[in-house]
Amino acid sequence: DKEAAVEVFAPHKGLNQKPTPIKIDRISEHEVNIEITAQITDIEINKGEMYKAWTFNGEAPGPVVVVNQGDKINFTLKNMDPSIPHSMDMHAVHAAPSTDFANVMPDHTGTFSYPADNPGVFMYHCGTKPVLAHIANGMHGMIIVKPKDGYPTDSQVTREYALVQNEWYKYNNLEDFTNGVPKYVVFSAKALKNGDPNTNGAVGSLVDKPLLAKVGDRVRLYVDNVGPNEVSSFHVVGTVFDDVYIDGNPFNHMKGIQTLLLPASGGAVVEFTVTKEGSYPIVTHQFNHATKGAVAVLKVTKD
Amino acid sequence: DKEAAVEVFAPHKGLNQKPTPIKIDRISEHEVNIEITAQITDIEINKGEMYKAWTFNGEAPGPVVVVNQGDKINFTLKNMDPSIPHSMDMHAVHAAPSTDFANVMPDHTGTFSYPADNPGVFMYHCGTKPVLAHIANGMHGMIIVKPKDGYPTDSQVTREYALVQNEWYKYNNLEDFTNGVPKYVVFSAKALKNGDPNTNGAVGSLVDKPLLAKVGDRVRLYVDNVGPNEVSSFHVVGTVFDDVYIDGNPFNHMKGIQTLLLPASGGAVVEFTVTKEGSYPIVTHQFNHATKGAVAVLKVTKD
Amino acid sequence: DKEAAVEVFAPHKGLNQKPTPIKIDRISEHEVNIEITAQITDIEINKGEMYKAWTFNGEAPGPVVVVNQGDKINFTLKNMDPSIPHSMDMHAVHAAPSTDFANVMPDHTGTFSYPADNPGVFMYHCGTKPVLAHIANGMHGMIIVKPKDGYPTDSQVTREYALVQNEWYKYNNLEDFTNGVPKYVVFSAKALKNGDPNTNGAVGSLVDKPLLAKVGDRVRLYVDNVGPNEVSSFHVVGTVFDDVYIDGNPFNHMKGIQTLLLPASGGAVVEFTVTKEGSYPIVTHQFNHATKGAVAVLKVTKD
Ligand SMILES: [Cu+2]
Ligand SMILES: [Cu+2]
Ligand SMILES: [Cu+2]
Ligand SMILES: [Cu+2]
Ligand SMILES: [Cu+2]
Ligand SMILES: [Cu+2]
Ligand code: NA
Ligand code: NA
Ligand code: NA
Ligand code: NA
Ligand code: NA
Ligand code: NA
Ligand SMILES: [Zn+2]
Ligand SMILES: [Zn+2]
Ligand SMILES: [Zn+2]
Ligand SMILES: [Zn+2]
Ligand SMILES: [Zn+2]
Ligand SMILES: [Zn+2]
Ligand SMILES: [Zn+2]
Ligand SMILES: [Zn+2]
Ligand SMILES: [Zn+2]
Repeated sequence: DKEAAVEVFAPHKGLNQKPTPIKIDRISEHEVNIEITAQITDIEINKGEMYKAWTFNGEAPGPVVVVNQGDKINFTLKNMDPSIPHSMDMHAVHAAPSTDFANVMPDHTGTFSYPADNPGVFMYHCGTKPVLAHIANGMHGMIIVKPKDGYPTDSQVTREYALVQNEWYKYNNLEDFTNGVPKYVVFSAKALKNGDPNTNGAVGSLVDKPLLAKVGDRVRLYVDNVGPNEVSSFHVVGTVFDDVYIDGNPFNHMKGIQTLLLPASGGAVVEFTVTKEGSYPIVTHQFNHATKGAVAVLKVTKD
Repeated sequence: DKEAAVEVFAPHKGLNQKPTPIKIDRISEHEVNIEITAQITDIEINKGEMYKAWTFNGEAPGPVVVVNQGDKINFTLKNMDPSIPHSMDMHAVHAAPSTDFANVMPDHTGTFSYPADNPGVFMYHCGTKPVLAHIANGMHGMIIVKPKDGYPTDSQVTREYALVQNEWYKYNNLEDFTNGVPKYVVFSAKALKNGDPNTNGAVGSLVDKPLLAKVGDRVRLYVDNVGPNEVSSFHVVGTVFDDVYIDGNPFNHMKGIQTLLLPASGGAVVEFTVTKEGSYPIVTHQFNHATKGAVAVLKVTKD
Repeated sequence: DKEAAVEVFAPHKGLNQKPTPIKIDRISEHEVNIEITAQITDIEINKGEMYKAWTFNGEAPGPVVVVNQGDKINFTLKNMDPSIPHSMDMHAVHAAPSTDFANVMPDHTGTFSYPADNPGVFMYHCGTKPVLAHIANGMHGMIIVKPKDGYPTDSQVTREYALVQNEWYKYNNLEDFTNGVPKYVVFSAKALKNGDPNTNGAVGSLVDKPLLAKVGDRVRLYVDNVGPNEVSSFHVVGTVFDDVYIDGNPFNHMKGIQTLLLPASGGAVVEFTVTKEGSYPIVTHQFNHATKGAVAVLKVTKD
């Protein structure tokens, strides 16, 4: 078994595939083509510490995908990994997993089609066995399905970011993935539009280069905790979430939340106002995890 | 202490009591007699691996109990365990724990009476000290209290199952129960009616023999995470929960949920539609736990 | 580094500062002065086992703070700790953390001012780095912001308590705080008014001296799980929560809840009725944690 593992992953040794851009093309009012690439790419997960991640598009988490409720998604997965199959499981859609989330072999391309009929903030991830290894090695991300009728608070929002929480463990160590505790727990910002911050899940990256806001902003965060193993107690220091939509569905509305519990793979839209200049840490309030890196900063300036 | 434990549990050695059927008799419109037996029975928890479980009725989890909101429950506990007391704590009822959930001595029978006035999906379990040992050794199950006015989505549901998540640890090892990580995390299906699948909490049992549905079904799952220690991030691959009722109470209505966080002992009604033929894995998305066995399959066929 | 730690904490050796009372003075209809003292005080966390806690006012958790929605809080932190800075992060308020939750140096006093505009049950804690150490060593508590328009169930409540869940680890051991499992998980009752029970977070303290109620009481608990690391599956044996307000906000209303999942730092108002004489255990249903001390008792008498 150990030998087999060595054999399978030997082709990854020294491999560092250059990030391939995601392709998202709207081909009609309710239909969108998405192409994502599975590839092996070195990711900095802490200062000076690289992880030869299994990725979507050379990022971990992968790029954020934004579609509209009611869209048909025509999805293409290109697998550039020379040695093992990968696949795509999108939590946003109705699909038959055994065929629509099927494996794509090394150096092959698979195409799939399914409807995104539920609004919200969802996890996507590789669903190839052992799933835990594919997620823990970096094959996860967020897909946002914009609700047909929007959120009741849309008009108040003045700034928005997409934020993902994930864990890192010992390198490609299924035993540690299964029975260990996380080495790092981290946040990443994923660009909603050109020019937005776009980072990998790395200790300190959003402390050194904070997210930005202005005094008086109502900030919306699209958040998802992709795990693979831990829940998140998502909290922004110095404010209270005015409005929360669980899994990003407008129906699941809460108000005045200090800390939002996200299941493994769970998402949300959270909105809050920042009333003064300063630095607002974003954490999971499971402080062992914050200590392991799950701290981002929102820097609020006057103008 | 160790010696005492040896003495107390010596009578369990080699004991394997044949499952006793649960008795549920409705004696009037709003009153039901329930008889459950505490007994020591060998349970297969993984292929070829037996666990001399402390059980209700020779199953672990025990048989599902279904009553109506407003019922008076006359409850009888027969304790066939030759060496230690057991008891019954039903989360569904209003009761004085110190008397209504009292210990029943070995080879004795206790009778209790209490109202089931809250609709929902609840845990039941042995409440004898150390409670952690009695739950972890297998004394847990689900009681459904059907809401007086039903669920708003009752008429749409075409298929339903009862599903329980539980953990297994090192055999009867209180130190491992308290400080260890689960050896297995598993699902079981508990029969709602004659002919339904009815399994113990065992790795792979609901993969080898999947739950069944047809294309177009709206499936309702009654779910409960009986622990004893872990929370569950309950998810069905390939679909989204159209409607969720937290703890099975129609008031606690959510929509469009990808993954439902269940506290230790928490329950829910979740409903979803399956739109295509194929195999839909059911997991806790805490993937270390899925890796340890928490995977069931719903097989969807055309006709 | 180890040497530095020894140096910094040497002044704590043998130190046991007498609890200083909290000061809460309403100075106008919508403005309140609060003075809290950071100090080093020995706390009994299990029978005969003392912990030289970092505390607010010589208690761990600190005293409960109750204000009204819309209040301006003028906050004073006196730091009596001779060796390290402390600070105050209140989840209830809008504030710029970098200035309003700033460090107060040893033997210094800091004053801050912010609005408590969100109703609910919130955590407060020291936010000085490493935050995990300051929380795990005892610097946490609960602040209740009473909603302007009350709760819809106010008129039915006949008894109320404030209850906090926290964990204890190896003494001042950041490695154990970060990667260990809790040594103890405990509840404490914090006095809402003179004469109320007021305890530290200690194994068994609320079992030996239970909370009290009468048959027929509708009991309200203000609860908060201050962590630092674990979530709580909050449950009262023998009853069901009739009404729950997540984070204590009247908008976040649930009914018929058996067990409430609290994130690390999350709070709630839960209400239930006790219909019979007897002892009702209060637990986290993560039973490894209940086994480590997270059990309180509500004793219900006839008159
Ligand atoms: Cu993969
Ligand atoms: Cu998934
Ligand atoms: Cu028992
Ligand atoms: Cu229980
Ligand atoms: Cu401090
Ligand atoms: Cu905090
Ligand atoms: Na899904
Ligand atoms: Na944890
Ligand atoms: Na876990
Ligand atoms: Na109960
Ligand atoms: Na735990
Ligand atoms: Na806050
Ligand atoms: Zn759909
Ligand atoms: Zn905070
Ligand atoms: Zn709303
Ligand atoms: Zn009742
Ligand atoms: Zn999935
Ligand atoms: Zn509804
Ligand atoms: Zn505010
Ligand atoms: Zn119970
Ligand atoms: Zn309400």
